[in-house]
Amino acid sequence: MTLQKTRAQNYPEWYQNVIQASEMAELSSSPGCMVIKPWGYGIWERIQRLLDEKIKETGHDNCYFPMFIPLSFFKKEAEHVEGFAKEMAVVTHSRLIQQDGELVPDGKLEEPLIVRPTSETIIADSFSKWVKSYRDLPVMINQWANVVRWEMRPRIFLRTREFLWQEGHTAHASMEEAEKEAKTMLDVYINLAQNCLAIPVIPGKKPPHEKFAGAINTYTFEPMMQDGRALQAGTSHNLGQNFAKSANIQFQNSKGELEYAYTSSWGVSTRLIGGVIMSHADDEGMVVPPVIAPQQVIIIPLYKDKDKIDLVNEYAEKLRKAISLQTAFGEKVRVRLDNRGKESVDKMWEWTRKGAPIVIEVGPKDIEKNSVMFRTRTKIETNEWKAFAPFDEFVQSVGGRLEAIQKELFDKAKKRLDSNIRTDIRTPEEFEAYFANQNVYLGRTDVPTVAFVRGKWSGDEETLEKMKEMKITIRCCPFDQSGTTGKCLLTGKDATLDVIYARAY
Amino acid sequence: MTLQKTRAQNYPEWYQNVIQASEMAELSSSPGCMVIKPWGYGIWERIQRLLDEKIKETGHDNCYFPMFIPLSFFKKEAEHVEGFAKEMAVVTHSRLIQQDGELVPDGKLEEPLIVRPTSETIIADSFSKWVKSYRDLPVMINQWANVVRWEMRPRIFLRTREFLWQEGHTAHASMEEAEKEAKTMLDVYINLAQNCLAIPVIPGKKPPHEKFAGAINTYTFEPMMQDGRALQAGTSHNLGQNFAKSANIQFQNSKGELEYAYTSSWGVSTRLIGGVIMSHADDEGMVVPPVIAPQQVIIIPLYKDKDKIDLVNEYAEKLRKAISLQTAFGEKVRVRLDNRGKESVDKMWEWTRKGAPIVIEVGPKDIEKNSVMFRTRTKIETNEWKAFAPFDEFVQSVGGRLEAIQKELFDKAKKRLDSNIRTDIRTPEEFEAYFANQNVYLGRTDVPTVAFVRGKWSGDEETLEKMKEMKITIRCCPFDQSGTTGKCLLTGKDATLDVIYARAY
Repeated sequence: MTLQKTRAQNYPEWYQNVIQASEMAELSSSPGCMVIKPWGYGIWERIQRLLDEKIKETGHDNCYFPMFIPLSFFKKEAEHVEGFAKEMAVVTHSRLIQQDGELVPDGKLEEPLIVRPTSETIIADSFSKWVKSYRDLPVMINQWANVVRWEMRPRIFLRTREFLWQEGHTAHASMEEAEKEAKTMLDVYINLAQNCLAIPVIPGKKPPHEKFAGAINTYTFEPMMQDGRALQAGTSHNLGQNFAKSANIQFQNSKGELEYAYTSSWGVSTRLIGGVIMSHADDEGMVVPPVIAPQQVIIIPLYKDKDKIDLVNEYAEKLRKAISLQTAFGEKVRVRLDNRGKESVDKMWEWTRKGAPIVIEVGPKDIEKNSVMFRTRTKIETNEWKAFAPFDEFVQSVGGRLEAIQKELFDKAKKRLDSNIRTDIRTPEEFEAYFANQNVYLGRTDVPTVAFVRGKWSGDEETLEKMKEMKITIRCCPFDQSGTTGKCLLTGKDATLDVIYARAY
Repeated sequence: MTLQKTRAQNYPEWYQNVIQASEMAELSSSPGCMVIKPWGYGIWERIQRLLDEKIKETGHDNCYFPMFIPLSFFKKEAEHVEGFAKEMAVVTHSRLIQQDGELVPDGKLEEPLIVRPTSETIIADSFSKWVKSYRDLPVMINQWANVVRWEMRPRIFLRTREFLWQEGHTAHASMEEAEKEAKTMLDVYINLAQNCLAIPVIPGKKPPHEKFAGAINTYTFEPMMQDGRALQAGTSHNLGQNFAKSANIQFQNSKGELEYAYTSSWGVSTRLIGGVIMSHADDEGMVVPPVIAPQQVIIIPLYKDKDKIDLVNEYAEKLRKAISLQTAFGEKVRVRLDNRGKESVDKMWEWTRKGAPIVIEVGPKDIEKNSVMFRTRTKIETNEWKAFAPFDEFVQSVGGRLEAIQKELFDKAKKRLDSNIRTDIRTPEEFEAYFANQNVYLGRTDVPTVAFVRGKWSGDEETLEKMKEMKITIRCCPFDQSGTTGKCLLTGKDATLDVIYARAY
């Protein structure tokens, strides 16, 4: 019933096992691309709905821009094309023809088209038509779309050639406004990660060499996975006037002068689902935080006693109805009565592997006692996994139980994050010794584990080379800077900037 | 304030004018592609939400499949590739490199990839992995996605190279089930068109030569635009075993025999928005049916009297709050207080051109009288456009007013449809004389107008050539067949099948 590999045995294989066992997604016959299956897509739909609400509340409208970007658009922003040129899908033909019994591309395009890796260039082109005066600003839009980056080593949800995301793009009349926007949207993402995905994060600014190609400032929120790696989960950029200059987004300011606009962009993707897996899943499969669970409670009727099928169905339906009227997180509880024609024990394990927060089995005994037998997914390794409650008591408590599960997941992840940030490493030697170890499941006690180090960084050119050798990166310069002076962990030189060092997905 | 061209003056230009004046969408710098702007995308979001609910209620789960389809997949279904080969975007390279100072495609792919024109082939490939036994059936999924067909003469919403749609795909254990599914989803679409978009339709079956490439049966719902043309708005296909055979979707049936599955597919797209425009818009701009209006009621505060700005804002906000608690069509009324810094008269015309169902202007006089001055978009050509009501009376009636507007739009379109189907044409000569005329706005009295003809069709090969010459098509064989025998309107031969002849988008 369990996964082929545990986290301790082989963390990367365990990750693939969870995805397969929970039927969230699979690799497709289309090379490097994934198929997102109903349970995985259901999680994405929940994330979409919750985030979309916040995007609209903060004043943005949804739009849709073309996914084909003329190649020439990429020539305009040198730094930007530099960042993406190596992984672009290029459309060069517009039809297929039969030639010597083979289907071959035909209708060569005058100008090749790039399938968007991100949409700054094409959206800036529209903004340049929309913005003439300061009265037209700000422009604040978002789109939900697919994007393509030609990954060579695909991993489901983490790195596939095509993935789904939202990308927000705004234009403002001043640098201050663009900066404020980038930070506002970072806050929206932090709220999503912590309160919806139950993933605690370290918010901060990317160091210059890790900024988005073409940005002035890139802000990030860095979560810690169960193997001590960070996950690049989403970013928010103040693009200053860079894209406005290359796309000619000019406006007449209130003094009547022509000025380039200040733009921002920000995005999160289906990669977040990979983050949820690596934050909460266990050796039995997926564990979905209730806020983003497509179904929060599953009811499985037990049909062993053929005489009592109708009674069991009736009781199960009564329970479903009662639960569906309850509230958790300010929304109606999402409950499903699973009456598919499969063995009930198979269904129970299926929903366990999928990580449904609460799974109820209803049989004749429960009807006799007017009670509910339920399993709480997060308690699978304890003797509280299976529990009983009187019908009314269970129904009234179900919202609170779901909220408690959400809190439990966050607290557990927060404890892992807090207890795995080393702040006591003082010298380049200690630092190197620490990262000489590999990232393994943090629950292991048989080998040294590696996670985050918080320490000083001098910012020298030579540090970049050294980090490459050590296969580590600076995840961010946390907002809560200490202001102290110490020694750079890479060079030993005096430095004041606090950074988070880690390996990352 | 009005559009550059009226429907009577130049119908195709009027269509473009409406889109521009309502700021729903525009052509992009990406050749042949559109940018869907907030008001247009808001309409699409409403359509998505309403349809998605029905898709789920009818037992389908949302998924996501790759947009890149290996070229070889198209070789498998000969009829299918024949239908799409002429308009396919082909990806041939995976990066750009600098060469002699120019950015050029590099990293040639071993096998070219097609950007999905529709996903039957790639989804059937997944189904072939998912389906082993009759117990795995039915598989019922849907995806919301972008698709590409290389149109040479783009028209916004009607024909752009990239557009948005949903495509449902199912696999079943019998032909009967696949057929039932195709018809169930047709009913969902008819309900969407008539009850949400206020567009009356003629449901029926496509004649053999108009079927989807690879289908056994294609079902359709045909609406009539204001110029008498039909709109190909969406279709539902029983694919029989055709795609199952080419993709090898085999299952062990209940008798233990290996059998090919029976599949269906069905889709509607952003083209529906084109249908809404050509069904309801008028010479002042867009008219959005309340059910799909992103905002149903707009409140514009009048700030002429500088002393009373606070009072006006307070009253407008009180009104907004009161309206937002009202219900129309079983949902809370969507109301927006438009307090942007523009002239109020400009805002009023902007919302009129956008087709917001009800626009309210709030000034000091309304506060004195505790009344509401409101404009009903559908009544713009009458003296009822501008009306007054006491505050409470207006608030309590607003839901009913929106429902009445929806009905008014449907009834008007239904009357147009019913009164423009000619059923009295008996001979090929009369038929040819009728279609010798061009499609123009049906409100014109100065020239002959052309719309639908209901009559017999013999089904001969020669009729296809004749229809091509006359630039007409058979839109469908309506479900309500008369069963009588008459003369084919193309050949004069005896025929029993009733069909709808028309020109179409």
